[in-house]
Amino acid sequence: MTTLPFSTDLAALLAEVHFNADGLVPAIAQQAGTGEVLMMAWMNHDALVETVTTGRVCYWSRSRRALWRKGETSGQSQHLKELRVDCDGDTLLLIVEQKGVACHTGRRSCFYQSWGAAGFATVLDVETPPETLYGAGQP
Amino acid sequence: MTTLPFSTDLAALLAEVHFNADGLVPAIAQQAGTGEVLMMAWMNHDALVETVTTGRVCYWSRSRRALWRKGETSGQSQHLKELRVDCDGDTLLLIVEQKGVACHTGRRSCFYQSWGAAGFATVLDVETPPETLYGAGQP
Repeated sequence: MTTLPFSTDLAALLAEVHFNADGLVPAIAQQAGTGEVLMMAWMNHDALVETVTTGRVCYWSRSRRALWRKGETSGQSQHLKELRVDCDGDTLLLIVEQKGVACHTGRRSCFYQSWGAAGFATVLDVETPPETLYGAGQP
Repeated sequence: MTTLPFSTDLAALLAEVHFNADGLVPAIAQQAGTGEVLMMAWMNHDALVETVTTGRVCYWSRSRRALWRKGETSGQSQHLKELRVDCDGDTLLLIVEQKGVACHTGRRSCFYQSWGAAGFATVLDVETPPETLYGAGQP
């Protein structure tokens, strides 16, 4: 088992993180090295603890009301390199190694719609078709 | 008046942005060029419209329940270079030119606490003391 670069003093971590009234905290995923912002999702207590103890990013899916181990279905996992907490303790920045694509549309980042002079433009290409990620018949 | 690189068809923009039950959408500010993630805050309808029509970033302060024109008090303004919307339309990525420091603590970014092997470490220095930003007697 690889030693993770994170303290196991979870009480110290949790003391600085403020979950909202729903027990959630927003987490921004940024690719290590390139600085690309990949996605924003939510974590609850268990997702955060799992992430820092396994090194594999786990969110809370608000739609499915379940832990969401990123890449569990698609294989496009995120591995945590560094965890930052903001000044208010109410937002996390996950510096990650993203395997493949972060977006369910098959793009590296979920932020592929850019609002410009002519309205919206799609600025990132699909790298892996969704049917490859999720199998035929799934969105 | 400088021409902004954004369409004035606000209906087309607003059609893609999904505000939550409180009428808010999270907005991540990232420094243009460097990719540094500076902060995350919230926008309501009016804050978003003001931002794309003036080019100067305006948030909604949940604590003050008022529009928050970034830098209005501190002078540390943010100017919008590019606006991205994520695949679900429920998170914004603002690519900005940050004047000075984004954090009220006087650091470039609010994400200055890094969780590592020895617990939290402060990884960004104070560049401008808060008393300079806000005047003596203010936090």
